[in-house]
Amino acid sequence: MREILRRSPFESTIYLGDNARAPYGVRGDDEVRRFSIQALDALVRRNVKALVVACNTSTSVALGDFRRRYDLPVLGVVRPGAAAAALATRNRRVGVIATPATVRSRAYFNAIKDENPAVEVYEHATPTLVPLVEAGMLSGSEVEEAVRQAVAPLLGERNEDGDFIFPLPPSARIDTLLLGCTHYPLLTTILRKSVGDSVAIVDSATATASSLAELLSVNALESPGTTRGTAADAGMAGHEAPNETAAVPVHFQLTTGDVELFRAVAERMFGEAFPDVERVDLEAGLS
Amino acid sequence: MREILRRSPFESTIYLGDNARAPYGVRGDDEVRRFSIQALDALVRRNVKALVVACNTSTSVALGDFRRRYDLPVLGVVRPGAAAAALATRNRRVGVIATPATVRSRAYFNAIKDENPAVEVYEHATPTLVPLVEAGMLSGSEVEEAVRQAVAPLLGERNEDGDFIFPLPPSARIDTLLLGCTHYPLLTTILRKSVGDSVAIVDSATATASSLAELLSVNALESPGTTRGTAADAGMAGHEAPNETAAVPVHFQLTTGDVELFRAVAERMFGEAFPDVERVDLEAGLS
Repeated sequence: MREILRRSPFESTIYLGDNARAPYGVRGDDEVRRFSIQALDALVRRNVKALVVACNTSTSVALGDFRRRYDLPVLGVVRPGAAAAALATRNRRVGVIATPATVRSRAYFNAIKDENPAVEVYEHATPTLVPLVEAGMLSGSEVEEAVRQAVAPLLGERNEDGDFIFPLPPSARIDTLLLGCTHYPLLTTILRKSVGDSVAIVDSATATASSLAELLSVNALESPGTTRGTAADAGMAGHEAPNETAAVPVHFQLTTGDVELFRAVAERMFGEAFPDVERVDLEAGLS
Repeated sequence: MREILRRSPFESTIYLGDNARAPYGVRGDDEVRRFSIQALDALVRRNVKALVVACNTSTSVALGDFRRRYDLPVLGVVRPGAAAAALATRNRRVGVIATPATVRSRAYFNAIKDENPAVEVYEHATPTLVPLVEAGMLSGSEVEEAVRQAVAPLLGERNEDGDFIFPLPPSARIDTLLLGCTHYPLLTTILRKSVGDSVAIVDSATATASSLAELLSVNALESPGTTRGTAADAGMAGHEAPNETAAVPVHFQLTTGDVELFRAVAERMFGEAFPDVERVDLEAGLS
């Protein structure tokens, strides 16, 4: 959301966090699909023009189902992240850490191969990391040890001096680590310590925001304010002068969990611009 | 193959046609996968640097399996074709005709949505067309009638004057028809009669050849002759002067079917440059 607001500042947004039922990544495919559709249905009822599935697990397991269910354009986070990783790697060896459900789907393997079939992809499920982030544990020796263990299979082990011991053969040494879960960027500082400076750390956020902006532009779905002051407005039939139609974007946030907890996190991340948080009940279909 | 030779004239090639077991499109997924792997194994044993799965059915059903099986880069035809269709459409409604196996996989739906999630994709299985092409029937009233019936569900019916009767609602009228089977381009003249001048007809061949050229270039897999006379050679470590290393490309053709029949078709399509045709037995693993 932060990257989308940065890239598309004239768009209004509705964010829905299924915090009460997170994490999805250790659930079965059917449950991930069902929960996701409940959440997306709630957004579609609020009359949105496009859907972003900002969850790697949901995207990996069921993006095709969402696209068949809704007439709206649906954007996932896997393909943008895969494109970013394929561009970042120099030795054509990319490691992916993700939830068990995402790794099981092979979504990142397939998406990175689609970007460049010559890139080797090493996927590794790291189920211990999401619970730490959900508990707010973003630093400290316990988290550092968990992160170190999580990425070790992609790198080899390091000794006290930081040198690799029992290293992977060079043919399997990655130069790019793709964070295949939206929780992991919060651990970037600690991840950087574990992987060293020579490995690029990539996540889906920036690339997904760019893909959304392109989607809106290519399909003429942009908010009128987006093109304010550009020559493009002149030829757009049915549009008023941009200064008159450009509306102030509005943002809503919905959570299935604790509203006060959610508001505290949202204000810390976005400041006072994000006051509207409502609780939504997806199970009852009352949203 | 013709498009690849046009786009990458300095590359040597091995073409394998599993003519004895074609068509694949009406077979079950397991059989398509098994036959395809036998064919690809035979090519890998001949020391190739990249594989092109020039069959929509094989690509749709099992591209991921091939990419896990081989260390070599493997390129399919679905994604290049999908990209071409997403670029061609103006009203964002694309029709796809393909084999039953390809339609069942939803590969084109997913790939076109990945290119632009706002494009509507209408897939239609046309199992009657491949047998006609295999039998060499590329013109005549019987073929015209079969083609007309095959594409009618994507367009509505036409009366004797060529106007649509019982048309699809405008919301489902396509402006782009993607030929999702490598046999169908041979029917383009007749397809054009059926769909009219206002529908763009797109196939995977040109886009796949471009993707292959990009794959070879990005991953430094090009034949030395490719960069002959360009500034790029100067900085390439370990390469001789291009004039000394540029070899004359060689081309082999393998078929599981009748060699004489295959040679006759190949010579008609490619001329005398393609004399080498050998029979290969995939079932016995003797290739």
